[in-house]
Amino acid sequence: MDEVSVLAPATVANVVCGFDCLGFALSEPCDEMTVRRIDTREVRIINRDDYGLPTEPEKNVAGVALLAFIEAAGIDFGFEVEITKHIMPGSGIGSSAASACGAVVAANRLIDDRFTKLELVELAMAGEALASGSRHADNLAPCIYGGFTLVRSTDPLDIVEIDFPSLFATVIHPQIEIKTSEARAMLPKEVPLKNAIRNWSNLGALVAALAKADYGLISRSLEDTIIEPLRKSLIPKFDEVKGASLQAGALGGSISGSGPSIFMLSETPESAEKVGEAMSAVYTTTGIDFNTYVSQIHPQGIRFV
Amino acid sequence: MDEVSVLAPATVANVVCGFDCLGFALSEPCDEMTVRRIDTREVRIINRDDYGLPTEPEKNVAGVALLAFIEAAGIDFGFEVEITKHIMPGSGIGSSAASACGAVVAANRLIDDRFTKLELVELAMAGEALASGSRHADNLAPCIYGGFTLVRSTDPLDIVEIDFPSLFATVIHPQIEIKTSEARAMLPKEVPLKNAIRNWSNLGALVAALAKADYGLISRSLEDTIIEPLRKSLIPKFDEVKGASLQAGALGGSISGSGPSIFMLSETPESAEKVGEAMSAVYTTTGIDFNTYVSQIHPQGIRFV
Repeated sequence: MDEVSVLAPATVANVVCGFDCLGFALSEPCDEMTVRRIDTREVRIINRDDYGLPTEPEKNVAGVALLAFIEAAGIDFGFEVEITKHIMPGSGIGSSAASACGAVVAANRLIDDRFTKLELVELAMAGEALASGSRHADNLAPCIYGGFTLVRSTDPLDIVEIDFPSLFATVIHPQIEIKTSEARAMLPKEVPLKNAIRNWSNLGALVAALAKADYGLISRSLEDTIIEPLRKSLIPKFDEVKGASLQAGALGGSISGSGPSIFMLSETPESAEKVGEAMSAVYTTTGIDFNTYVSQIHPQGIRFV
Repeated sequence: MDEVSVLAPATVANVVCGFDCLGFALSEPCDEMTVRRIDTREVRIINRDDYGLPTEPEKNVAGVALLAFIEAAGIDFGFEVEITKHIMPGSGIGSSAASACGAVVAANRLIDDRFTKLELVELAMAGEALASGSRHADNLAPCIYGGFTLVRSTDPLDIVEIDFPSLFATVIHPQIEIKTSEARAMLPKEVPLKNAIRNWSNLGALVAALAKADYGLISRSLEDTIIEPLRKSLIPKFDEVKGASLQAGALGGSISGSGPSIFMLSETPESAEKVGEAMSAVYTTTGIDFNTYVSQIHPQGIRFV
């Protein structure tokens, strides 16, 4: 086997009260990636889309992840990777994570799955660090494990797979740019203990509710009094989108990653579709281009094709 | 039926990363309580121990809870309650919660269990407010529900029963006094966002680990970088007790409630016994009187006798 093709899914991180730890995998959109073994110990990037991402491996998220992979595997050959991105860079639904994860998962299959999932996340973190400037794994973990994951710690890396029931996500991606530096500058250095307690009570309840399939409790726990009130100002019509989504039957939701995408969770696909219509109705009034996605929370992460 | 007797168990609140929300019920020590119906619409307290607690109902935790109960039930009779406390007041293992919960659970049986568990916690909160000056439910919830409980919110009251595996607790109660006001004054108004994130990641992981019976993850998640570093100074030899407990095989633990008791969790009763010996060995050097308890985490709260 000299070539492996995968679909690398979009992911949602910063799941409401799970800021910086909780994420989940969507079933779509997915990037298409093919990784080929080449005889030289190097990485070659071929972009098959119009995003104009760098082709120098050291400047490309998939490239950096593969360089880390080759180093860790101690192999004397390299990889060519062909990428058709369908997850728009900068959308806030794990575009760079999909590139990094797809590359290392496909390459791993070419060396007989020598690395564990945990090790693959660790390797993909090199790519994610290039994209975001910091080592974090909350999009990488669901991309590789699928479903809901909680990153308890990044050093040492500790990933928890969270049991969850049938759930559907609706995502709206308003095509505006949010600078990571700007979103990061909005984070407070300190938070009131009272709010922090409320947040960890909600996250503990959410994890229990997902395992029990208690949709009422899922809905009540989807509350963020810390990050959302600050960052929502970066996203036009955030309150209107959220309000219309809840009215259309969503369980709850918030900013995906650091935005600009907004996600909402629903118990049924019908409800998720209605939420998509409600979101679209709000955004058609703005003149801002947008995409919406309705997707199952996918129990699998990267799929081989 | 004119008389009901119950055993009201000790409870541990502020379970490490679950500050102000997570608690569990011990199998011992328990208070013995008997509640009798009386024809007059009043509450009479009979103390059968040497703690000298008030017998005026308005100043007694069980009395205040029963007064709230009579009011909410709209009944035209009252109760006499006979209390033999075995949970020492001020020990930090839910002594006042046991009094309040035992009283309302027993009285509820006398009116054919008209109130739900959630409503009983709500009523017992009146008693707890007398004892601690604030409305909180993190000892009350496990006392009434048993097992591990998470109080997601007190207003409105929202209690989550947490699935958990076989677990054992070792408690050491050093007989020193910690003033609630002093322990409260140590709480920071604000906490670094970084520590708060670490804490909610740990609590999310702990809830998942309890449901999965993943003892390794339970152990790794039992970490508190916010409250313990501040409050441990109130308890002599805290670090030594914790260190010796971990060395004896404990999964982890911390201050019970706001102290002075320290609790540690273990996977097996043998390990919990060893932890008790290790704790005692540290405390015998101090000249401070102390008790230790080794107990299953009890799936039931209050038991009828």
